[in-house]
Amino acid sequence: MSIAARTVQVSPGGRPASGYDILLEPGSSAALPRFLTERLPDCRAAVVVTDEHLQTVATPMADALRGVGVTAKVHVVAAGERSKSLESMHGIFEALLDLKADRRACLVAVGGGVVGDLTGYAAASYMRGIALVQVPTSLLAMVDSSVGGKTGVNLPRGKNLVGAFHQPAGVLIDPDVLATLPDREYHGGLAEVVKYGVISDAEFFAWLEKHAEAILAREAGVLVPLIARCCELKAAVVAADEFETTGVRATLNYGHTFAHAFENLAGYGVLSHGEAVSVGMTCAARLAVARGMIEQAVFDRQTALLQRFQLPIELPAAVDASADAVLAAMRSDKKNVAGALRLVLPVRLGEVRIFADVPEEQVAAALVAS
Amino acid sequence: MSIAARTVQVSPGGRPASGYDILLEPGSSAALPRFLTERLPDCRAAVVVTDEHLQTVATPMADALRGVGVTAKVHVVAAGERSKSLESMHGIFEALLDLKADRRACLVAVGGGVVGDLTGYAAASYMRGIALVQVPTSLLAMVDSSVGGKTGVNLPRGKNLVGAFHQPAGVLIDPDVLATLPDREYHGGLAEVVKYGVISDAEFFAWLEKHAEAILAREAGVLVPLIARCCELKAAVVAADEFETTGVRATLNYGHTFAHAFENLAGYGVLSHGEAVSVGMTCAARLAVARGMIEQAVFDRQTALLQRFQLPIELPAAVDASADAVLAAMRSDKKNVAGALRLVLPVRLGEVRIFADVPEEQVAAALVAS
Ligand SMILES: NC(=O)c1ccc[n+]([C@@H]2O[C@H](COP(=O)([O-])OP(=O)(O)OC[C@H]3O[C@@H](n4cnc5c(N)ncnc54)[C@H](O)[C@@H]3O)[C@@H](O)[C@H]2O)c1
Ligand SMILES: NC(=O)c1ccc[n+]([C@@H]2O[C@H](COP(=O)([O-])OP(=O)(O)OC[C@H]3O[C@@H](n4cnc5c(N)ncnc54)[C@H](O)[C@@H]3O)[C@@H](O)[C@H]2O)c1
Ligand SMILES: [Zn+2]
Ligand SMILES: [Zn+2]
Repeated sequence: MSIAARTVQVSPGGRPASGYDILLEPGSSAALPRFLTERLPDCRAAVVVTDEHLQTVATPMADALRGVGVTAKVHVVAAGERSKSLESMHGIFEALLDLKADRRACLVAVGGGVVGDLTGYAAASYMRGIALVQVPTSLLAMVDSSVGGKTGVNLPRGKNLVGAFHQPAGVLIDPDVLATLPDREYHGGLAEVVKYGVISDAEFFAWLEKHAEAILAREAGVLVPLIARCCELKAAVVAADEFETTGVRATLNYGHTFAHAFENLAGYGVLSHGEAVSVGMTCAARLAVARGMIEQAVFDRQTALLQRFQLPIELPAAVDASADAVLAAMRSDKKNVAGALRLVLPVRLGEVRIFADVPEEQVAAALVAS
Repeated sequence: MSIAARTVQVSPGGRPASGYDILLEPGSSAALPRFLTERLPDCRAAVVVTDEHLQTVATPMADALRGVGVTAKVHVVAAGERSKSLESMHGIFEALLDLKADRRACLVAVGGGVVGDLTGYAAASYMRGIALVQVPTSLLAMVDSSVGGKTGVNLPRGKNLVGAFHQPAGVLIDPDVLATLPDREYHGGLAEVVKYGVISDAEFFAWLEKHAEAILAREAGVLVPLIARCCELKAAVVAADEFETTGVRATLNYGHTFAHAFENLAGYGVLSHGEAVSVGMTCAARLAVARGMIEQAVFDRQTALLQRFQLPIELPAAVDASADAVLAAMRSDKKNVAGALRLVLPVRLGEVRIFADVPEEQVAAALVAS
C-alpha cells in the first residue's frame, strides 16, 4: 500500500461480523482482482455493472478478473436516474443467469450512486443475496452512497421506494477516476462533504476551508484524506444506526428535507441533488440562527464554504419558492413520521439535533434571506 | 383461546428479538384485526394480498381491519405460479402507494405459497422493509412456506431466483379454510407433512399412520395438532439455520433434488410439486435401502403412507424418466455446490443426513423399482 492509501473499517450496527473495509488509494482500480478475491475467495463469476460513462474503467476490470480465474462480464446500463428501476434490475439478473451465477457469484458496481444503488439491490435479491463489491466513481458515491448498505430502485411514482439493506463485502475507491467527473457532479458531491463537517466534525469543516483551493483542483493529496474522513463519519453513523431506527442515521438528512422539496418543485435538470442540498443546508442554518440555536458566524462560514465550492445558496428563479408550495412538498416527505415535519438543525458547528416541533411559519421564514 | 388453539414460537437464527408466533385456531380468520393490531400497534394501513380463489376469505378481513381503524384494501393477483413475478410485485407496490403507505404500513398475505412468497418479498422491499402478516390457506403454505422467512419471485428463466429473507410479524392459521382446498392441493401438502416425519420425527410419522383416515377427512381435531407439529419442526430448523448456511435447513430438501428434476422434465400440470416430492422421497428412500442405510421396512412404511394419502410413488408414463434425463436435470439444481450432487437421505426413520458422494449409477438405479 502506498503512503497515500487509507482504509476505513465499517461495522454496521456495531456487529464486526458483518463488517467490511473501504480501501482508498489512487490507482487502486487496477487492484480490483486482488481486492475481490481476498474478500471472496469462493467467487468464480462476477458481473461488473456500470454505465456508459464508466465503461473504460469497468472493461479493464472485467478483463483483469478473468485473468485471475473469475468469469466476468460487463453489464452496461444507461447513465442517469432512470436506470434505477425494477426493469434494469431484471437486466442484471439476466446477465447473472448468462454466467450461470450461483450463490457464490458476486456483483461489482462501477459507477455513481445510480449504479451502486441498483446493483446493490440486485445483489441483495439474486438467490436471496449474493456478495457485492462497490467501486464508487462519483464523489457522492465515494463519500455517501457506497457506504452503509442502503440499496434500492425508484418506482414511477417516487424515488427510492423499493430496496434492501445489503452491506457490501468491500468498497474500493480510486480517487484518480474523479478526473473525468463533470464539474457539476463534483461540486454536488462537495455539498455532502460540507454536510459532514456541519453535522459532526468542526475540525474537518475548518480543514475544508483551509484546503478549498486544492479540493477544487481535485489534488490527490487532499482527496484521499477528504474522502477517508467522510467515510469514517458515515461509518460511525452506520455503526450506531444501521437500519435508520434510532434517529442517529437521520442526522445525515441535514438540509435534505428542504432539498427533497426543492427537487420535487424544480423541473428536471434545473437543480442537481447537491445543489438542492446546498440551498437546503442554507435554509436549515438560517432557521437555526432565527431560533437562537447557532451564531450568525456559523451560518456565514457554511455559506462561504458552499459558495467557494460553486454551490448555490438560494433557489434559481425558475423554481417556485413560495412558502406554500415548499411546505406542501416538505410535508409529503416519506421521512416524516405521522405527518409532523422533522428537521435536522445545527446546534453548533459539528453537531445537529432532530426537531419535530418547528412551527411552519418559522420554516417559511427561513426559505429566503431577510 | 379455545381448547383447540395452539401457538408455536419461531426464533429465526435463535434470536428471540426477531421472533414471532404462529397462532393456529379453527375460525381464527375472524380474529385477524386483533392479531394484527396486537403485533403491529402502529399500523394504520394494510394491503391484503390474495388470489381469486381466496377473495371470500380476504374481503371480510379487509372490512374487519377498517373496523379497527386500519385503512385496508384487498389486492387480488391471478391464482397460480405465474403471479410470482417482479411485475406482480410492482402491482403490490402500486396498491401500497394508493394507500399512501409509509414504513408503518403492513402487508397481509391471504393464500397459498404463491401469494405468501410474492407478498413476503414485496414486504421485504417496500421502503426497504415493512411488516408482513402471513395467513396461509393451503396445507403446503400452513406447514411449510409461511414459516421461516423465505420469500421471493420467479424469473422467466427459473423458479425462486430472486427474493429476500423476511420474517413475518406473525402467522395466523385457520384450518377451517382448508375445507375449500382442492383435493390434489391437499394431498400435495400431505407429501410435505410425511417429509417432516421421515426427516425428523418418527413418533409424528407413527401418529400420521394412525390418524390417516381423519387426516384425509380434514377433521379439525387432527388438523390442529398436525399443522402445529409441522410448524414446530420447521421452526426448529429455522432457529438452527435461518439463512441456509449450516446445512440444517438443507435437510428440508429431502426428496426435493429428485422432485425438482421431475418437475423440470414433466410438462406443465402433469405433476404437482407435492406429487413430485412423493416420488422423490420414494427414490431417496430406495437409494438409502440400496446403500444399506435404512431397513426395507422403513421404505415400506413411507410408501404405504404416501399411497394412503393418494400420492404417487412413481412417475406417470408421460414423464421422461430415463436416467440420463433425470441426472442431467438433477445436476443443474441450484442447491448443488460446485456441481456435485447433494442428496438428503434417511439414516433411520426420523433422521436424515446430507451426502455429496453418491455415485450417479446408484442414483440412476434408485429411480425405478427393481
Ligand atoms: N445508497 C445511499 O445511501 C445513497 C446516498 C445518497 C445518494 N444515493 C443515490 O445516489 C444517486 C446519485 O448518485 P450520483 O450523484 O453518483 O449520480 P450518478 O450515478 O447518476 O452519477 C452522476 C453522473 O456522473 C457520471 N459519472 C460518475 N462517475 C464518473 C466519473 N468518474 N467520470 C465521469 N463520469 C462519471 C455518471 O455516469 C452519471 O452520468 C441517486 O440515485 C441517489 O438516490 C444513495
Ligand atoms: N417460502 C418457502 O419457504 C416455500 C416453501 C415451499 C414452497 N414455496 C412456494 O409455495 C408455492 C406453492 O404453494 P401452494 O402449493 O400453496 O400453491 P398456490 O399458492 O398456487 O395454491 C395452490 C392453489 O390452491 C388455491 N388455494 C389455496 N388455498 C385455498 C383454499 N383454502 N381454498 C381454495 N383454494 C385454495 C390457490 O388459489 C391455488 O389455486 C410455490 O411457489 C413454492 O415455490 C415456498
Ligand atoms: Zn444527499
Ligand atoms: Zn416442497
